[in-house]
Amino acid sequence: MSRSIFPAAGPAAADAGSGTLPHPFDAAVALQERGEGRFGGQPHPGWHNMVGPFGGITAATVLQAVLRHPARLGDPVSLTVNYLSAVQDAPFEVEVTPVRTNRSTQHWTATMTQAGEGGAAEPVLTATLVTALRRPTWGATDMPMPEVPAPESAGERVRFKGAAWVSRYDMRVVQGGLPTVLDDSGDGSLTRLWLRDAQARPLDFPALAALADAFYPRAWLRRARLVPAGTVSFTVYFHADAAALATVGDGWLLGQAQAQRFSNNFADQTGQLWSQAGELLVTTHQWAYYKE
Amino acid sequence: MSRSIFPAAGPAAADAGSGTLPHPFDAAVALQERGEGRFGGQPHPGWHNMVGPFGGITAATVLQAVLRHPARLGDPVSLTVNYLSAVQDAPFEVEVTPVRTNRSTQHWTATMTQAGEGGAAEPVLTATLVTALRRPTWGATDMPMPEVPAPESAGERVRFKGAAWVSRYDMRVVQGGLPTVLDDSGDGSLTRLWLRDAQARPLDFPALAALADAFYPRAWLRRARLVPAGTVSFTVYFHADAAALATVGDGWLLGQAQAQRFSNNFADQTGQLWSQAGELLVTTHQWAYYKE
Repeated sequence: MSRSIFPAAGPAAADAGSGTLPHPFDAAVALQERGEGRFGGQPHPGWHNMVGPFGGITAATVLQAVLRHPARLGDPVSLTVNYLSAVQDAPFEVEVTPVRTNRSTQHWTATMTQAGEGGAAEPVLTATLVTALRRPTWGATDMPMPEVPAPESAGERVRFKGAAWVSRYDMRVVQGGLPTVLDDSGDGSLTRLWLRDAQARPLDFPALAALADAFYPRAWLRRARLVPAGTVSFTVYFHADAAALATVGDGWLLGQAQAQRFSNNFADQTGQLWSQAGELLVTTHQWAYYKE
Repeated sequence: MSRSIFPAAGPAAADAGSGTLPHPFDAAVALQERGEGRFGGQPHPGWHNMVGPFGGITAATVLQAVLRHPARLGDPVSLTVNYLSAVQDAPFEVEVTPVRTNRSTQHWTATMTQAGEGGAAEPVLTATLVTALRRPTWGATDMPMPEVPAPESAGERVRFKGAAWVSRYDMRVVQGGLPTVLDDSGDGSLTRLWLRDAQARPLDFPALAALADAFYPRAWLRRARLVPAGTVSFTVYFHADAAALATVGDGWLLGQAQAQRFSNNFADQTGQLWSQAGELLVTTHQWAYYKE
């Protein structure tokens, strides 16, 4: 396929005529509808990671495409995104397909493509998502929010020069920050931190998906060494419904992440996001590649 | 598509001419190769659940199709299976596609179809999988096996008349068995049990995928009430490589599963499988629908 199927799209296009700059998150997930479940977009420089865009913003963009699909039923309840290769700083296309619509659940597949060598469209991401109409039921929480100092008493705001996306969030580490002495002396993989948008924005499902990926590689902490590492597969379960998100607004979230095992190039991460009021909004899991 | 694209396939076909009955697991994951990544199969009556086949055996069947694909690179490292609707007791076709092959990782998508009303092929499952060539690296385990009584000292073997697949395993509950008094009095969602094949069989990746789904719905335990429930999305991360599986052979595994939250029709489950020697083989997550 010729490279011309990937016309420019991005913050400038999204903002055309609005007169005010959109929030950096909205700019990043802006998509051009092309019909039949296809949407064009472009990585936003404000969300760059060390190689390609922050994985969380890419996952959010895929979810945004589902939310904009005219056949969508209900709100997001789960997503799994697999990163096939680094997303290039070039136009992409997301295609989302409602493969099965039941009475109260709807199953989606998604693919993101970019022009590869020679101009042919190459897949860089695959995903499956579920949306659903939810009804009030019996409920219970078996993972209470840990007792931690309030955001105002937590550490200083996290800065990380190598990755622009870190500046999009206000993150205050409570436990398990990025090691400052890299001497292979790490002994645990648990991080707890408060986080929210640096520029206030009411929480929605795509934003929550991105926030669920805001933890740096567990291997860096566990080993106290910045080995090459990247997410291979990323899953988010949305316990929160739209009403719960509205209650949170632009408030702080408490994030927690921990690995269970590192072995022969791969490690897992299991995590949670609570509202400051202690509601468990999201549980999340990922599978990461690492070297050395 | 006409129903004739789903010819009979199953234990009888797989066993033709061998002279001995295959192990029930091998019979269940037997597939007829149809070329271009397509494989035909049939649910095995020995693995029936209350509605359709046990989800774990269905996931194992999809993984088996990947393992039989001639272009496969390396061993399984992760899989996510989404259950779109109950699998019918009728022929199915699995199609697996290597969407991207990198130097050491390979990404797959998969779809299972069955003939729907009018005979057209309808998707009943979608999946993404990753296989990889693994190399020895630094490693660590942050989720040690809990201290529990040995299998011989654990409870009696689990029996459950409503689901044939339960008899395929020898399961001995240590904690959190199926409630015997169903009175809404549950107060936790943690189950720990020893499990292995009832008919001994050396552990392989598809078997491990099935075992990771061997926990009954967390909502039944947490609430002490057998509400309608079913898995929507199921993820397995394979920490164990082929050498680790060979070490386990047909030995006992310790399984652990727990929910983090139940809310408005959906609940998560996070789980682990260790070898009896204490090696963490698998971490697993699922997202389940429940009513009431």
